[in-house]
Order: sequence, then structure tokens, then C-alpha cells
Amino acid sequence: MSIRTPYLLFLGNAADPLAAKVAQGIRDWRPENCVGQLRLEDCNADLGLTDMSPEQAFAEGAKTMVVGVANRGGVIDASWVTVLVQALEAGLDLAAGLHNKLADVPEVAAAAKRLGRKIHDVRHPTRQYPVAAGSPRPGKRLLAVGTDCSCGKMYTTLAIEKELRDRGIPADFRATGQTGILITGDGVSIDAVASDFISGSVEVHSPANDENHWDIIEGQGSLYHASFAGVSLGLIHGSQPDALVLCHEPTRTHMRGLPDFTLPSLEDCMDANLRAAHLTNKNAKFVGISINTAKLSEAEATAYLAKIEAEFGLPAVDPVRTGVAKIVDNFA
Amino acid sequence: MSIRTPYLLFLGNAADPLAAKVAQGIRDWRPENCVGQLRLEDCNADLGLTDMSPEQAFAEGAKTMVVGVANRGGVIDASWVTVLVQALEAGLDLAAGLHNKLADVPEVAAAAKRLGRKIHDVRHPTRQYPVAAGSPRPGKRLLAVGTDCSCGKMYTTLAIEKELRDRGIPADFRATGQTGILITGDGVSIDAVASDFISGSVEVHSPANDENHWDIIEGQGSLYHASFAGVSLGLIHGSQPDALVLCHEPTRTHMRGLPDFTLPSLEDCMDANLRAAHLTNKNAKFVGISINTAKLSEAEATAYLAKIEAEFGLPAVDPVRTGVAKIVDNFA
Repeated sequence: MSIRTPYLLFLGNAADPLAAKVAQGIRDWRPENCVGQLRLEDCNADLGLTDMSPEQAFAEGAKTMVVGVANRGGVIDASWVTVLVQALEAGLDLAAGLHNKLADVPEVAAAAKRLGRKIHDVRHPTRQYPVAAGSPRPGKRLLAVGTDCSCGKMYTTLAIEKELRDRGIPADFRATGQTGILITGDGVSIDAVASDFISGSVEVHSPANDENHWDIIEGQGSLYHASFAGVSLGLIHGSQPDALVLCHEPTRTHMRGLPDFTLPSLEDCMDANLRAAHLTNKNAKFVGISINTAKLSEAEATAYLAKIEAEFGLPAVDPVRTGVAKIVDNFA
Repeated sequence: MSIRTPYLLFLGNAADPLAAKVAQGIRDWRPENCVGQLRLEDCNADLGLTDMSPEQAFAEGAKTMVVGVANRGGVIDASWVTVLVQALEAGLDLAAGLHNKLADVPEVAAAAKRLGRKIHDVRHPTRQYPVAAGSPRPGKRLLAVGTDCSCGKMYTTLAIEKELRDRGIPADFRATGQTGILITGDGVSIDAVASDFISGSVEVHSPANDENHWDIIEGQGSLYHASFAGVSLGLIHGSQPDALVLCHEPTRTHMRGLPDFTLPSLEDCMDANLRAAHLTNKNAKFVGISINTAKLSEAEATAYLAKIEAEFGLPAVDPVRTGVAKIVDNFA
């Protein structure tokens, strides 16, 4: 499923900057993969990249146009079809992480077939994965886990990858969700894998490596999320993590999508994740806590991080506010 | 995915009785669904049912021919195709739980389409499931969990369903694997469901029911199995079990398929399952232990069951050797 880089980022008719957050993620974390942006007339997002047509992007070396925008419902907008076909005709592959598939749009599928281009619908895995072997493999791995879904695991792991690379330590972010796959061009949309192969798919995407190499694996869901905990457990077992980072959003009043479920305590959550991790790696341990303090004031955030550090004896950071250097200091 | 009953059981060219164990399971647990058997010339299995052609079975009221045999590899044998098509022509639907699909055999697919018959490849779910809601629902549910895969969960839950029904207590076995689905005609092959929907699929297949009704849910895998634990956890959360039964095979030296993994202690395993179950049902508790003593002598089995009862203060049974009445006495 490797997506050819660099990219032309398609922002479409984004209603606001947030609608283009996938493109923004690629721009933030892989600027070297971004040749330019393509915006339709009524686009309200701007990544500060050069606006260009598919033909111009191809001439500048772009290999794939990535749909970096989501409209309401996360489906393909009828107004995009002309430019999607235009991109294929210009020589570009297409990639998207939408709920429905580019490959199911007849005009797009026909053009790709006629021109021999690839379409990557990254939310829909096409490859077969093996059942997990559970055997130890060389290389070091870090996994983000969380008290809930959508509390900062992708951002935290991308920040840790960057910090390691900035220090000259070999490291690769391993994507397990569609946005991460589009950012890095590879990975597995683990929530769409048949349940027998959850752990196996993670073993494939964080393979044996040099002893001093770190795979920084994006987490998903939470062991305490009544809808998705199975995904999280399979991800833990397949990762065989040496290091765990707990991600938490401290102002949330209930589990995402489940109004009747309160969040676990950080202590209970760490305990459950360690128990699970020890099945495939007896040495797994927490190396830090990553707090999404976006909804706290600077003073509240500082106080909260200090409290967490004192309580757990682990570095506590907000990757946006403080960076993740303290966590990396603790394991790399 | 409901399969129409009763069945003609296709034993094909079964190499030995074990090769026809799916058909045997249907015969044992749903004899009222078995109109007859169909054996090819070189068949070494015999369920003691009347041998009949598809035409005779249809005349006797059969609605579906079930492939109750597995050859090496669990795939469709070329020698079966003629009789599969013959069954469709006689008026029967087809059902199988093989690795590859009946619907992918061109002659079979064409005949089914031409004749308007249904093909049920129960290992390959076709329906879409919702994300689990996690909301409490009425009705009682029992779930079998295990120290390992393939240690007696299906047999145990079918036996408990039968014991409850024999006592006049409303109960339904809920299948989560292909053999169970073929036995009862309904259920979900949970290991093939996309991982986001594990728990959701269980909520669908053990829905809200009368307060005094028991769903007896077939377990899968083990929280301690490094390949499949995610499936088991999602199954626990979706089941919201009031009652748990631990299944164990005491002579096994390592986890199935994982030579480097030892089995958990019964105590650790019960502890982990209870923690998991309490997320969606605070009142979940173990009501019994089911031991597969097939490899023990009568004296060894009796001593082992007594030891387990003394150690855990719960009824311990072997569903084959002792029946499950003691467990049912403890919860129903």
C-alpha cells in the first residue's frame, strides 16, 4: 500500500481550515513531501504552499495527489470528480482516507484503469495479513496508548519520531490510521482489518529492525473504550512495545461517543495497558505521559503537568505546548 | 445471514469421521434440523442419518444443503462441484464455513443466480455492523471464555443451552464462529469482522430480550492468546455478560499455535476476564469452570474437577463426562 511521494495536496472546497486537517498534518509532519496545494474556488483553507494544477505539480515532481480535505460525512464530493480525473490524466496517482472509496467513483476508476494509475483508499485495506506469530523481533518499539480515543496519540508519536530524528536516532513513525498513512505514505488502517489479524497487521508494519532503531507506533482507541478496546488490545500485543506513552485529555467528561462511560483513572489505565503489554514483551514499561492541554490555560497546564509528574514519577508533556523532549530523554 | 432449516448434511468424501465434525455438531445439537445425509462414494464418515439425494431431501422438506465436511486445507474440493450444483437445481440453498467461498466457484455461483438460491459462506460476513453502543440491554447473557483457543467453549455453551431448555428456561445459543453458525443457522463469524465492529456485531447477535431469557454466547480465543486476544476482548465487551464460564484444557503445554507461550493460570485468566467484563457489566461474575478432560483417565478427571472446585469455590464440570447441570444450578 506504499503511496508514492511527493504529493500535491488537494484542499478542494474546504469549508474551513479544520476541514483540511489531513492536508495540514502532512504539511506539518512531512513538509518535504509537499510539492504544492490545489484549491477549488470556494476553498477556505490555505496551507501556504504554492497553488498549482495537477499538470504543474507533475512537472515539479509530484507523484500522487492526496485528498487532504473532508466534507461533511467524510464522503467524496461530486464537485471533486473532474479534478480527480484531471490529476490521473496529468500523471498522478490518487490517495484518500475517506469513508467511501475513490475507486468506487466510476469516472475515477475508469480513468485510473485506462491510464495505469494507482488509487489508494487507505481506510480500506486490500492486503492480506498473517495471524500474529508473537515471536520477539529485534529493534525497539514505542506505542502510544490512551485513556480514550482521539486524545493525541498520533500527534504525540509523530512528535517523538521528529525528536528522535533531530537527535540522529533512527526512528520511524508507524501509522495505524488513515491520516497517519497519508502523512507517511504507508501503514495499516487497523480498525478496518479483520479481527483475527489485528496483531498480525501490526507485526507486518513494525517489522524486525536494527537493534538501535525505534519504531514509534501510533495508538488507537483505548482498553477502556467499550466499542474499540479489542482493536487497542490487538495493537498492544502486535507492537510488543518496549516503551509505552499514555495519552490523556484531562477535561473530557466521558468516553468519546459513550456518554454513560466515565474515563478511567490514569493509574488504572496504565495498569491495564502494562498487563496487556507484558504478554508479548515482559520488559514493557511506561516512559512518559502526554497530556492534551489545549483546553487549559497556560497556568492550568503547567500545574497539571507538574502534578502528573509528581504523582507518577514520569515525564509529563504536552507535545504542542512543551514538546516531547523530556519523554525522549527518558528512553532514547 | 439466517440459514433456512432443515438441512441435508453433505459429508462429501470425508477422509474419516473427524473430517465431518461440522456435520456431527449439527447432528448432535440440532437433530431436528437434519433431514438426511449425502455421502460421495469414498466417504468414511456416517452420521447414521438416511442417505439421500438432493431431490429426495427437498421432497422431505430440506431447505439447505450444508457442507459439513472439511478436506485438507479447508477449501472446496473439485469433486464436490457437481453435487453442489445438483443441490441448487433440486431447490436447496447452500451453506458452508470453508476458507474459500462457495460463491467464488463459477459453476456454483452461476447456478445459484440462475435459480434464485442463496449461498451462505458463513466465515465471510456480508452484513455491515454498527459500532458498539455499550448501553445496558435487558435479558441475561452468559459468555464462555478460555485459557486458550479450541478448549471447549462451543461445546460448553451448546450444552448449557440444552440444559436450560430441558429445564424450561428460555435460552438461545449465540454462535460466534462458523461451526456454531451452521449448527444454529445464525450468528457472526466474529474473527472475520472488521476490528472496529467486534463488539458491535456481538450486540447485534445477542440483542435485548426478555428479562428471564438467557443468551448463551459462544466464546472465541483467549485474552492470553497473543494472536487473537483483541477478538476475545471485543467479544467480552459486546456480550455484557452477567455470567462467565471459564473453559480449560489441562494437559496443554503451550498456547495453541504459539509454542513459546505458556498457558495462564486459571486464577490470572479469571481475573483478567472479570476486569474486562466489568467495563460493560459491573455485575459480571464467574458461575463455573468447564474442563476438557478428554485426555485424562476417569480417575484423573474426577480428581482434577474436585481440585478445581475446592480451589475456586465454583462448580467444575466436563460437559461430555459430567454434563453441565452443576453450572446451570449455580446461575439459572
